[in-house]
Amino acid sequence: MVATLKPSEIDALLQAVRDGQVSPADARARLSVAAAEDLGFATIDHSREQRTGWPEVIFGAGKTPEQVAAIAERMAARGHNVLVTRTTPEAFRLVSGRLPPARHHEAARCITVEAAPVAPLPGRVAIVCAGTSDLPVAEEAAVTTAFQGGNVTRIYDVGVAGIHRLLGRADELRQADVVVVVAGMEGALPSVVAGLIAAPVIAVPTSVGYGASFQGLAALLAMLNSCAAGLAVVNIDNGFGAGQMAAMLNRKRDS
Amino acid sequence: MVATLKPSEIDALLQAVRDGQVSPADARARLSVAAAEDLGFATIDHSREQRTGWPEVIFGAGKTPEQVAAIAERMAARGHNVLVTRTTPEAFRLVSGRLPPARHHEAARCITVEAAPVAPLPGRVAIVCAGTSDLPVAEEAAVTTAFQGGNVTRIYDVGVAGIHRLLGRADELRQADVVVVVAGMEGALPSVVAGLIAAPVIAVPTSVGYGASFQGLAALLAMLNSCAAGLAVVNIDNGFGAGQMAAMLNRKRDS
Amino acid sequence: MVATLKPSEIDALLQAVRDGQVSPADARARLSVAAAEDLGFATIDHSREQRTGWPEVIFGAGKTPEQVAAIAERMAARGHNVLVTRTTPEAFRLVSGRLPPARHHEAARCITVEAAPVAPLPGRVAIVCAGTSDLPVAEEAAVTTAFQGGNVTRIYDVGVAGIHRLLGRADELRQADVVVVVAGMEGALPSVVAGLIAAPVIAVPTSVGYGASFQGLAALLAMLNSCAAGLAVVNIDNGFGAGQMAAMLNRKRDS
Amino acid sequence: MVATLKPSEIDALLQAVRDGQVSPADARARLSVAAAEDLGFATIDHSREQRTGWPEVIFGAGKTPEQVAAIAERMAARGHNVLVTRTTPEAFRLVSGRLPPARHHEAARCITVEAAPVAPLPGRVAIVCAGTSDLPVAEEAAVTTAFQGGNVTRIYDVGVAGIHRLLGRADELRQADVVVVVAGMEGALPSVVAGLIAAPVIAVPTSVGYGASFQGLAALLAMLNSCAAGLAVVNIDNGFGAGQMAAMLNRKRDS
Amino acid sequence: MVATLKPSEIDALLQAVRDGQVSPADARARLSVAAAEDLGFATIDHSREQRTGWPEVIFGAGKTPEQVAAIAERMAARGHNVLVTRTTPEAFRLVSGRLPPARHHEAARCITVEAAPVAPLPGRVAIVCAGTSDLPVAEEAAVTTAFQGGNVTRIYDVGVAGIHRLLGRADELRQADVVVVVAGMEGALPSVVAGLIAAPVIAVPTSVGYGASFQGLAALLAMLNSCAAGLAVVNIDNGFGAGQMAAMLNRKRDS
Amino acid sequence: MVATLKPSEIDALLQAVRDGQVSPADARARLSVAAAEDLGFATIDHSREQRTGWPEVIFGAGKTPEQVAAIAERMAARGHNVLVTRTTPEAFRLVSGRLPPARHHEAARCITVEAAPVAPLPGRVAIVCAGTSDLPVAEEAAVTTAFQGGNVTRIYDVGVAGIHRLLGRADELRQADVVVVVAGMEGALPSVVAGLIAAPVIAVPTSVGYGASFQGLAALLAMLNSCAAGLAVVNIDNGFGAGQMAAMLNRKRDS
Amino acid sequence: MVATLKPSEIDALLQAVRDGQVSPADARARLSVAAAEDLGFATIDHSREQRTGWPEVIFGAGKTPEQVAAIAERMAARGHNVLVTRTTPEAFRLVSGRLPPARHHEAARCITVEAAPVAPLPGRVAIVCAGTSDLPVAEEAAVTTAFQGGNVTRIYDVGVAGIHRLLGRADELRQADVVVVVAGMEGALPSVVAGLIAAPVIAVPTSVGYGASFQGLAALLAMLNSCAAGLAVVNIDNGFGAGQMAAMLNRKRDS
Amino acid sequence: MVATLKPSEIDALLQAVRDGQVSPADARARLSVAAAEDLGFATIDHSREQRTGWPEVIFGAGKTPEQVAAIAERMAARGHNVLVTRTTPEAFRLVSGRLPPARHHEAARCITVEAAPVAPLPGRVAIVCAGTSDLPVAEEAAVTTAFQGGNVTRIYDVGVAGIHRLLGRADELRQADVVVVVAGMEGALPSVVAGLIAAPVIAVPTSVGYGASFQGLAALLAMLNSCAAGLAVVNIDNGFGAGQMAAMLNRKRDS
Repeated sequence: MVATLKPSEIDALLQAVRDGQVSPADARARLSVAAAEDLGFATIDHSREQRTGWPEVIFGAGKTPEQVAAIAERMAARGHNVLVTRTTPEAFRLVSGRLPPARHHEAARCITVEAAPVAPLPGRVAIVCAGTSDLPVAEEAAVTTAFQGGNVTRIYDVGVAGIHRLLGRADELRQADVVVVVAGMEGALPSVVAGLIAAPVIAVPTSVGYGASFQGLAALLAMLNSCAAGLAVVNIDNGFGAGQMAAMLNRKRDS
Repeated sequence: MVATLKPSEIDALLQAVRDGQVSPADARARLSVAAAEDLGFATIDHSREQRTGWPEVIFGAGKTPEQVAAIAERMAARGHNVLVTRTTPEAFRLVSGRLPPARHHEAARCITVEAAPVAPLPGRVAIVCAGTSDLPVAEEAAVTTAFQGGNVTRIYDVGVAGIHRLLGRADELRQADVVVVVAGMEGALPSVVAGLIAAPVIAVPTSVGYGASFQGLAALLAMLNSCAAGLAVVNIDNGFGAGQMAAMLNRKRDS
Repeated sequence: MVATLKPSEIDALLQAVRDGQVSPADARARLSVAAAEDLGFATIDHSREQRTGWPEVIFGAGKTPEQVAAIAERMAARGHNVLVTRTTPEAFRLVSGRLPPARHHEAARCITVEAAPVAPLPGRVAIVCAGTSDLPVAEEAAVTTAFQGGNVTRIYDVGVAGIHRLLGRADELRQADVVVVVAGMEGALPSVVAGLIAAPVIAVPTSVGYGASFQGLAALLAMLNSCAAGLAVVNIDNGFGAGQMAAMLNRKRDS
Repeated sequence: MVATLKPSEIDALLQAVRDGQVSPADARARLSVAAAEDLGFATIDHSREQRTGWPEVIFGAGKTPEQVAAIAERMAARGHNVLVTRTTPEAFRLVSGRLPPARHHEAARCITVEAAPVAPLPGRVAIVCAGTSDLPVAEEAAVTTAFQGGNVTRIYDVGVAGIHRLLGRADELRQADVVVVVAGMEGALPSVVAGLIAAPVIAVPTSVGYGASFQGLAALLAMLNSCAAGLAVVNIDNGFGAGQMAAMLNRKRDS
Repeated sequence: MVATLKPSEIDALLQAVRDGQVSPADARARLSVAAAEDLGFATIDHSREQRTGWPEVIFGAGKTPEQVAAIAERMAARGHNVLVTRTTPEAFRLVSGRLPPARHHEAARCITVEAAPVAPLPGRVAIVCAGTSDLPVAEEAAVTTAFQGGNVTRIYDVGVAGIHRLLGRADELRQADVVVVVAGMEGALPSVVAGLIAAPVIAVPTSVGYGASFQGLAALLAMLNSCAAGLAVVNIDNGFGAGQMAAMLNRKRDS
Repeated sequence: MVATLKPSEIDALLQAVRDGQVSPADARARLSVAAAEDLGFATIDHSREQRTGWPEVIFGAGKTPEQVAAIAERMAARGHNVLVTRTTPEAFRLVSGRLPPARHHEAARCITVEAAPVAPLPGRVAIVCAGTSDLPVAEEAAVTTAFQGGNVTRIYDVGVAGIHRLLGRADELRQADVVVVVAGMEGALPSVVAGLIAAPVIAVPTSVGYGASFQGLAALLAMLNSCAAGLAVVNIDNGFGAGQMAAMLNRKRDS
Repeated sequence: MVATLKPSEIDALLQAVRDGQVSPADARARLSVAAAEDLGFATIDHSREQRTGWPEVIFGAGKTPEQVAAIAERMAARGHNVLVTRTTPEAFRLVSGRLPPARHHEAARCITVEAAPVAPLPGRVAIVCAGTSDLPVAEEAAVTTAFQGGNVTRIYDVGVAGIHRLLGRADELRQADVVVVVAGMEGALPSVVAGLIAAPVIAVPTSVGYGASFQGLAALLAMLNSCAAGLAVVNIDNGFGAGQMAAMLNRKRDS
Repeated sequence: MVATLKPSEIDALLQAVRDGQVSPADARARLSVAAAEDLGFATIDHSREQRTGWPEVIFGAGKTPEQVAAIAERMAARGHNVLVTRTTPEAFRLVSGRLPPARHHEAARCITVEAAPVAPLPGRVAIVCAGTSDLPVAEEAAVTTAFQGGNVTRIYDVGVAGIHRLLGRADELRQADVVVVVAGMEGALPSVVAGLIAAPVIAVPTSVGYGASFQGLAALLAMLNSCAAGLAVVNIDNGFGAGQMAAMLNRKRDS
């Protein structure tokens, strides 16, 4: 795929064409090479890791256990580590049958298969959540960050109605290089955290609540309207997105 | 109007009918008496004070200065103190021309006319706001509470992004019997305040903000979803409603 | 936690440091003392009662029966009375197995465990609801108020389509110091009640209705836009919030 | 246009074709006859009165004064009475210059031109509104009903926060055959009225209010969710639609 | 309850007091008489029929079969005909066990019990629906109208995508005195019908559709924005409301 | 139905009346002929194919398997090919029992019965989808287009997060005469495709996603706001509508 | 830019590199050639015409007259015909000063500059609108189609409340190869048109209406939920998008 | 304020108390020290820089020029650099009169006053925008990043409808350590960018668009639902928030 090659690579390829080392037909093939593998129901983006530095992740919701297992197998076959989010015990049984080292993170609703050891990222990521009901989302973030090599500290059930619970763990918060804050209901916790520390905050609204929470809309809007600087937001219940972002931000430290 | 008379008053009236002191026709007239005065464009509810303990208040928005002045005059003529909210300098000029003791509270966009001295309410009301832009709403609450005899303390611009500003005034907060908390944007301040104190909190979302604040919807939803107990909410920008509620809650103290 | 100590307590502690009665390390520990107990999946806010005057309440929705029972046990162990809302028969079985005095309020979907007798609050709270379907929410409010020592009068199924049902109980309404009004559908009842009485009204929209009720949005908006003064609103179906607020307002009477 | 002819008329026309009194070409022309007049920017529906019993009405908003005047002139030229809604003083000047008997109903923002006397409809229509700010909409309804021959009683500024104002005029309400109820803010008035009387209620939400009224959405939803039977709703601020419906319902009385 | 008595009845009662025929205490009792019966979970409005001319109807959704049967029994005991909407086969079994003449209208999800024969209303009501999926709502309207004595014609599955189906039944439409039009999806049918006929149209949006129909919101908005005059709207899926309104409009004919 | 006859057909019919070959009564019958068949619960629009060139299609959702089978049978009996969308295995069993050549397209949730061979349409239709979860909608489009004679190319799972997957199949895209693009979540794919090619794009938002996708609203809004020209949108999850539109656009090629 | 070159062009270019006719550096430059021109505030997409067959169009809203004129000038300098939409008289004055052949289409709020004659497209496009207020949007569609060589028939002010106006012009409708239908308020017209004809319909909702039209949302939802097949929708008020789509669909006829 | 002091600082302070070097009263004062300065209408958070590493920024919207100038002066007096966002020429005139080195960034609607030189941050920030109308928001981000010492590259008007414009600048994109992507309308650009590069993306939806863009809601939802990893979102039009976050992320590199 030309678009994802670096200019120097295009130059080298074209030079090889000129030198007669590569035929124009081959060059075109390489320029158009299918970095994606077509399973019929899915087109696996094998070049994502090379292109973005991170492997593709399998979003389990809406896929059959069989589809999840098939994609996982093909990714593992190419040597990629595998992370499946929003998955089920059924999918885990199928995956672990084919890829024995698979691990099930039940609270996080995730499966991981580590084909190769992951290099630890520098820095620390704190994952904070407001209430017990936010745990599945917080754990999805934690598993994702750890899957990418991140060093995770969990600070759970420290919502703003009892703000001393949060302040009591302020030291841990301040040692983090990135903080993921997960909250439903009124979604106030990320604003309070961002006002206390110098590190960037990734805010994750959850669908925890009822009535006028409108499945997380209230928390989402609160976080988007935060008066605190240094805070950005991901989708409702998107623990994966926050965990991935946290890992990326830590990698930036030594890039 | 029968429905608003106390049972003992009905009994007394009916006894007077039996005794021949009041004719049935007169009794019916008194039972149906127009406690409301019809100005054509408005039906003034003169019995509201007697019925609910509080005089009717003139909501200035959507009324012409002339309409505001006419209603104010009729209320003053009956001996009621007058409060006009959401008003304009034009309306004030007209009102003060006819009712010289009228005062203009510009920051609050209110006019008051005190025909009779107001008995001071017991207790203290703290009015807290998150940012400078919330001031007009906070002042509307403060003027309303004071108009009803309330004792008001103002604690302004203490939003959650710098929570030490709030904590620095925690003593004043704790001395209040009722706290009105006014905030726009993410609307997190009432939750934090309610988590710190034992007094009830009246939360007022404001339309301050932009983008996904959707004219105060974000703050409104946040406050409705507060995880803190002892908190109830009024309409967006409804400083009057909060101020009136605060006054009522204080009066309850010695009822 | 310093922030929740009273200034006089800080002074006393610091004086003790100066006098050498308390070591700096101990003082810091006391300033930072974990008033919260960490169960892993939950951080119980044991100081809430001391801080706000009211114990923490367990919101049962989204927690497993086991989690509910574990938290209830720890709270009872510290001598707190326990209220669980939005709970299930399964959770009740588990809780009552461990805490035999537990009571199940089925209509209200609540569990209470009274470790210590509750001091009765002064004043009366009327709980009004518009229709039979609003009962679970009204009962949640009633159980909560009573749990805090409140004196509750129930006035049920008196919606505005037959307003004489409400007016027929006007005497009871007028004797209340606080009125909680629960209504779904068009949510008009709180406005009518607030227009009749002098006491403050806590309005609770419910998700009762269909079609354009949008799960209680219609009732919520109606209550927020009430033209009556002395009315504040809690979240859709939030009987607990209203009952707690009502108890707090009554306690204010003699504070 | 065939579709709007009655079957008997089609039969007669076809019989005339058979009898040779009408040529097939003429018949087709009559079947397709342009009952509409094309002004380029507008296609006037001259057959509406014949088809539905009521003349077309000019919705003034979004039309230039010149367009309004041109359409009014063509309608008057065909002998129709003319009603223009949502109009402006500028449009009135232009219309009255060309059609001197034109009348301007300022509070209602309407123009009427009565080319022919209107037969009075049987029955009575009460137009009720909750507050002074609802007047323009209520007046649009009143002018529309009167334009169609209706007999209108106005009952204004009798909102639910002072329900005795409404009850004080219950006799007038009960004498009406149809009641139009206009209200903004929480939109509770139509439910209360419909619960008191036997006549049908046409409910008109208005955009009066602020904050969570969302330009009349709150009132609209409240009316749609009314628990009272015998109530139907028109668009926000649609005084015309309600007035027209009221006139139609009264005509039904003797049809 | 005074408010629902006619003025002449109040006069007569007061005259009887004066004449000594009625004691003041009795008079007060009669003025306040509980026209409502309290079942604990429900307050039956027995005076509704006398007040509004129509008996109370039992909205079955959200009530247990036992509650439905209890209310039905009490109403029948007072001689009222009974209509239960949104009901279930379970509720029918219970009701018919106690009130054998009960009938189950399955397609309409209704139960009726006719204690006394209903006087037929003059005029005709056409019930029109756009598609097969709208049938339950259309039938609820038809059963309701018939329950009140209305004469119903059904015109089903004649949506606008094949407008000749509608036009082919134009004669039946034109003979109706009131037309109820039920439609989901784009909700265009009521506008087309109202443009063709002189009778008033009651429009009922349904939740039939998917995606951007948002559970009937699309149809509701379309109907509220109809450019056709003589059309009013009830809640989404509210067949009962439309059927009741249609019956009321027909009764008006000879009142 | 006159309105759907061509003018030349009306002329011919009228000429036949004049010539005495057709009686006026017969002519009226033909003009009004019930091109629709009434099954009680459904009015089948048999003339749709003649009128619009395409047979009516059975929308299976909300119909019982029995209703689906009955309608399918009646359509087949008239010689129409049958397409049922949003159907179930139960409905297929019933339909195939009565119409053995019926085929079940499981991924598309469709049934087809080809009574007569379909003439192939000129041109090519590419069906593109963003992710594996969008497959059911994409397949519904593909089956619909093929049912009408269209020539379909499937390009699946080529979402914008790995845009080289799309670019790698640009040749296939450019050969299409119409492109249907199906995407959920952020709905960005149609804009990117429309920016690359000269053919028109039919965009289909899907309800795939979670949280702030709000059941497809996010994708729908994104597609409606596309900055690319040559793109129009159908309802969320409306694969049928897109497939039908694509077939119609191709037929236009040689009309 | 490689991605937008056809494969054959890439082959030819690579062959030329091999033959030494083009240097690798030049080839890379051509592969990466800035088909876009950077004006600082704008990056003009000069290759769009070559890539998609249609030139870029200037969306005037939110651009200063000076920016509009500068972009128009640069496009004309490259020999492109220019279309500016959502423009103002001020912008026209500036553009026509620099490009004298510029024409102002006031009703459509468009400017066109025809540098080169446009080849007429085969087929006919009918532009239909429901009301006079929809004219600006309908005209934007008409001007856009004509700008691209389309043959336009205008059928204006034929809304569904007087459906005979539409049926009276059915012949013209049936002769069109594509029909653009523009409607505000209830947005029912496209469904009715699509049910009558065999050609595809592009539906354009407009923001015409008030109250519950919510700036065109009602019409948009109605069109998306159309029960008629062969209909796709563009953004609210997007006359340009519909006109462009109509032109593209006609060009497809002979491609 | 104790809560924002580091534990070591508390220990030191307490040790000083013990040693008699600091009196308990002084210690309490320092623990409670007003790090905030009260201007009456504003409480300036002077400790924010010390606490979070970044100075407070003045949000100009909703503040009078006089308020802006007063706050700017007080901040400058304490030696802070000053950034005012959402400001006006009037405010600039006032500020520059008092603080002559003030600079006006008109396109960004910002004022900066650099009291002290800012240390350059390591790394590069690319600011990308989709269209010319997004410029004010993009510039606000750029000015904010630069104000904090960031090294900014601007890549403007490269929306997805002409994706080669973006790909043509892929080298610059890949050299950035953080990319801010600003887009209105369908908001697709951030997803495409995040799919191409390894660096984190801060997505900024803008209110650019019309109709179903609903003032930026469409773009906001699209970005929140992005299928690309490594992307987080700030409020609509919140250029400041994105620019600040970008600066913070870069500082993390060498922390």
